Amino acid sequence: MKYAYLGPAGTFTEAALLKMPGGASAERLPAASVLSALAMVENDDAHAAVVPIENSVEGGVTATLDAVSVAHHLHITAEALVPITFVLASAEPMELAEIRSVTTHSHAWAQVRKWAQTTVPYAEYRPASSTAAGAHGLRNDPPVADAAICAPLVAEQLGLHVVDRQIEDVPGAVTRFVLAAKPGPVPEPTGADKTTVMIPLPEDHPGGLMEILEHFATNGVNMSRIESRPTGFGMGDYYFSIDLEGHIAEARIADALAGIHRISPKVRFLGSYPRADGKPQQKGPEVSEEAFAAAAAWIESLRG
Amino acid sequence: MKYAYLGPAGTFTEAALLKMPGGASAERLPAASVLSALAMVENDDAHAAVVPIENSVEGGVTATLDAVSVAHHLHITAEALVPITFVLASAEPMELAEIRSVTTHSHAWAQVRKWAQTTVPYAEYRPASSTAAGAHGLRNDPPVADAAICAPLVAEQLGLHVVDRQIEDVPGAVTRFVLAAKPGPVPEPTGADKTTVMIPLPEDHPGGLMEILEHFATNGVNMSRIESRPTGFGMGDYYFSIDLEGHIAEARIADALAGIHRISPKVRFLGSYPRADGKPQQKGPEVSEEAFAAAAAWIESLRG
Amino acid sequence: MKYAYLGPAGTFTEAALLKMPGGASAERLPAASVLSALAMVENDDAHAAVVPIENSVEGGVTATLDAVSVAHHLHITAEALVPITFVLASAEPMELAEIRSVTTHSHAWAQVRKWAQTTVPYAEYRPASSTAAGAHGLRNDPPVADAAICAPLVAEQLGLHVVDRQIEDVPGAVTRFVLAAKPGPVPEPTGADKTTVMIPLPEDHPGGLMEILEHFATNGVNMSRIESRPTGFGMGDYYFSIDLEGHIAEARIADALAGIHRISPKVRFLGSYPRADGKPQQKGPEVSEEAFAAAAAWIESLRG
Amino acid sequence: MKYAYLGPAGTFTEAALLKMPGGASAERLPAASVLSALAMVENDDAHAAVVPIENSVEGGVTATLDAVSVAHHLHITAEALVPITFVLASAEPMELAEIRSVTTHSHAWAQVRKWAQTTVPYAEYRPASSTAAGAHGLRNDPPVADAAICAPLVAEQLGLHVVDRQIEDVPGAVTRFVLAAKPGPVPEPTGADKTTVMIPLPEDHPGGLMEILEHFATNGVNMSRIESRPTGFGMGDYYFSIDLEGHIAEARIADALAGIHRISPKVRFLGSYPRADGKPQQKGPEVSEEAFAAAAAWIESLRG
Repeated sequence: MKYAYLGPAGTFTEAALLKMPGGASAERLPAASVLSALAMVENDDAHAAVVPIENSVEGGVTATLDAVSVAHHLHITAEALVPITFVLASAEPMELAEIRSVTTHSHAWAQVRKWAQTTVPYAEYRPASSTAAGAHGLRNDPPVADAAICAPLVAEQLGLHVVDRQIEDVPGAVTRFVLAAKPGPVPEPTGADKTTVMIPLPEDHPGGLMEILEHFATNGVNMSRIESRPTGFGMGDYYFSIDLEGHIAEARIADALAGIHRISPKVRFLGSYPRADGKPQQKGPEVSEEAFAAAAAWIESLRG
Repeated sequence: MKYAYLGPAGTFTEAALLKMPGGASAERLPAASVLSALAMVENDDAHAAVVPIENSVEGGVTATLDAVSVAHHLHITAEALVPITFVLASAEPMELAEIRSVTTHSHAWAQVRKWAQTTVPYAEYRPASSTAAGAHGLRNDPPVADAAICAPLVAEQLGLHVVDRQIEDVPGAVTRFVLAAKPGPVPEPTGADKTTVMIPLPEDHPGGLMEILEHFATNGVNMSRIESRPTGFGMGDYYFSIDLEGHIAEARIADALAGIHRISPKVRFLGSYPRADGKPQQKGPEVSEEAFAAAAAWIESLRG
Repeated sequence: MKYAYLGPAGTFTEAALLKMPGGASAERLPAASVLSALAMVENDDAHAAVVPIENSVEGGVTATLDAVSVAHHLHITAEALVPITFVLASAEPMELAEIRSVTTHSHAWAQVRKWAQTTVPYAEYRPASSTAAGAHGLRNDPPVADAAICAPLVAEQLGLHVVDRQIEDVPGAVTRFVLAAKPGPVPEPTGADKTTVMIPLPEDHPGGLMEILEHFATNGVNMSRIESRPTGFGMGDYYFSIDLEGHIAEARIADALAGIHRISPKVRFLGSYPRADGKPQQKGPEVSEEAFAAAAAWIESLRG
Repeated sequence: MKYAYLGPAGTFTEAALLKMPGGASAERLPAASVLSALAMVENDDAHAAVVPIENSVEGGVTATLDAVSVAHHLHITAEALVPITFVLASAEPMELAEIRSVTTHSHAWAQVRKWAQTTVPYAEYRPASSTAAGAHGLRNDPPVADAAICAPLVAEQLGLHVVDRQIEDVPGAVTRFVLAAKPGPVPEPTGADKTTVMIPLPEDHPGGLMEILEHFATNGVNMSRIESRPTGFGMGDYYFSIDLEGHIAEARIADALAGIHRISPKVRFLGSYPRADGKPQQKGPEVSEEAFAAAAAWIESLRG
């Protein structure tokens, strides 16, 4: 299997790829951008692509769902969470005090600002197009900088010397990545699943979102993420990008989405897949499969 | 066919019976009370019963739905509207000024009070157990009164002299009657139908009714009547008696009731039947049969 | 103080009057109908009127709220609950087996039907215009019947002999009565109060009731009764008659009603008054007076 | 006045600054990151900061609202929309065919990918820490590249030669920027305003968002943007970042927010300010200032 990912090698995205189903044994194809990675799947140059879906260091994420859903019509088949932690790495063993220049992606630089001000206050900053590109640049002749701020993975891959670690100003950050593939069989439900949908609304009226949410409420469906996004096709038009807790194989998810299909027929299903955190969904007895089956049987008996 | 009705002969209920499907040719069996009429159906002494369901002259109506649904488990198969208009009738031709006593049911008496105060101010009032019973009493020896206030039907049936007509203080009143029978095939949808249900709620909490109504809202179902009623089985417990616009054969009604069955499994279906006023139901494209079918097909395609 | 009530003397309504604030010492004025009792208040012939508001033996109740709110613009200042229990009474001591005729109101007769069939199966039924009128008729010459089915109160008032008691087929029934007066100061909140309102809706659309209920939901206000009622002023127009748990002096009731006033400006307030069952209202911290005060202070601080 | 902004000079953010109230005459202070710009305001080194709030070329935007609201407790006092269009600029006049290397921020590079593949297919890409930094680098000795992809503003400021213009693959993109300042008097309402709030929810339950939205619905308040955001303080906790159409000076906005304050007392107000697009808010008569005043007067009259 070939998996494309937002490259170059050694980024947090590659770390996410390794956590995906089949990732450890897949051929890994770095792409220059999220759009390129997704295009490789669409063009059959890769079986799937790993792309960041929420806040990431190398950026480009806010628009990823737009790209998956609007530009490429792919489905999400898995997600992975990667802790965002940085190391300061050098080509040869060095002391902190010796470092006069550092390179990294500008987003990563912003996330270690306080550490840099106190630890390497005199180091010059040199931008790189990614954290991994900066790390690779240490092997250039001449090197792009004395040291690079990068993911632990790339430091390990390149055999770099780790001068300092866990240097991020705010510890505990985690980025979510998804595995996107051409539409195919939906992964089996595991009891701890997510379903991602995009729901266009024709106009920006006060009750529009309420109407959608009522379908979730009446079916006991919880959302774990919601974002309004402009469709890009004219003023006032927008869509909601939503993650639901549950799987399309469940009656409550199916009924909620069927109801939404009636009011917004262009609703798009982007996949049901296991949750990275494995947290099982909670649901009341009134939205159990048994309750749906009993209700359907009752209606059937009335209709005779 | 035998139809029981709230008697005696000549009441507004008999007038309603004549408007029901099959009523003109049915054998008409007067009953002494709503409960008796319903019991005759349950005991197979009649095929159906005609009973008042909303404000009526001879009373007993508030509890009719309780009786239909709780005590007798019958279904409603038709409804009829009867204008409530009174005549003043005498056994032999008389002038208004000659009338010294009038008889009628106390509810009817209340509804002609102003007319009586100005037209027959010196007439003594003698109560009757129904408007028809009063009319019949004019033929007693001695007659129960000089004149009776009754439905036009009974005056005609008994060949009485009509001294005055349309004597009700508030013109335009209409009473609704239903035809109740043992559960059987539901009448075919006509495009202008009602569905009556009773929905028990386990406790009296602020959101309970909202949860029910959301199922109607998400399925575009309108209510034409709602009443909260005590279940009679303990403090705090109650149910809603509701008339919906639409037929159980429609997807929107079926889906709304299926959803309610999940939160209140003891919901009881009391029938889908043509509206007496023939007013066709309005529904938006998002709750058309086509929209439900398209949504179901979409879900099916996702589940593969 | 003069209190009108639905007479004659000895009805359940008079029993309710005696339980009302000031009832024990009030001059009691029987009226021939609910409308007459209310008219006496409006014409200043009485300070208040006691009328049945829910299922009652002598009837006339479904329309009482219409009368209070639409015809007479009165306010409710108290409520009382009266157990509906019947006695079989005779003028002189008699045995059950001796009774050949009984008199009572037709509604009462319907409520003792099973008892009558097994206990006095051969007794002839003679209708009366009220249970009390039947009891009084025992003193006529000749008496209207051997025995009367009536409230315990009238049997006691007339010194009748009680042949049998608690003869109702379904024990435990209770009727609710209200005290209606001209609009004046609202009774003080007690912590266990009700508020009655009528809310007209211009048209019968699916979302109309939802919009109203959302104002109750967002303010944590529970309903203890709801009924849709035709306004009588044209097809399709109707109003909701609703009892709320709480007092207009509470912020949550005031805010909910203010919101409803914006969407249905003809909403009518029919009074806040102590609950007959004394059950204190439950409310969450988010709708406490403190929460409303804190929210108002916050908004004030933002507006500067 | 001193305005900080996400620098360096010549970015789209500086273009936004020039469109802000007071921007044309303000002293402009470039900052290295959104957080630095906001910190300058908090430390009184600037009166306000201009930062991107939605998709932007140089990134860092998803987290801007978190920074404004959580880290710095600033208010938004204005917004501006800037069209995202790129030019290809060189230090000296050049032909397209002569260009062998280009520099720009990696996000900008992703947005001109198709243009680059067809127009400068052999040009080497050299990353810059911002589009403006790349443009400045053309004046280095040696220059960082033959040409830079940058905002029209910086090309003009530096007197560069524009080789090509409007080279973005998707035309019509617009980025939204806000002016953030220490809390102070709220800008006057203009009739076309926005209000930004953040609303924390204690737990991720199905009804949580519905409860919030019902306060908007009952007050006729429309949302123009909604995003769920993790609070960063533990699993399962999150907040909603929401833009409302309207001004805190309006009763409908004040009442909606007061209601939300009761259920989520840590709700934070981030400002009411004129809409950049000047589109006047639509509101029905039921949420006009007059309707709120009439409702308040009615309640006052009831409470006496």
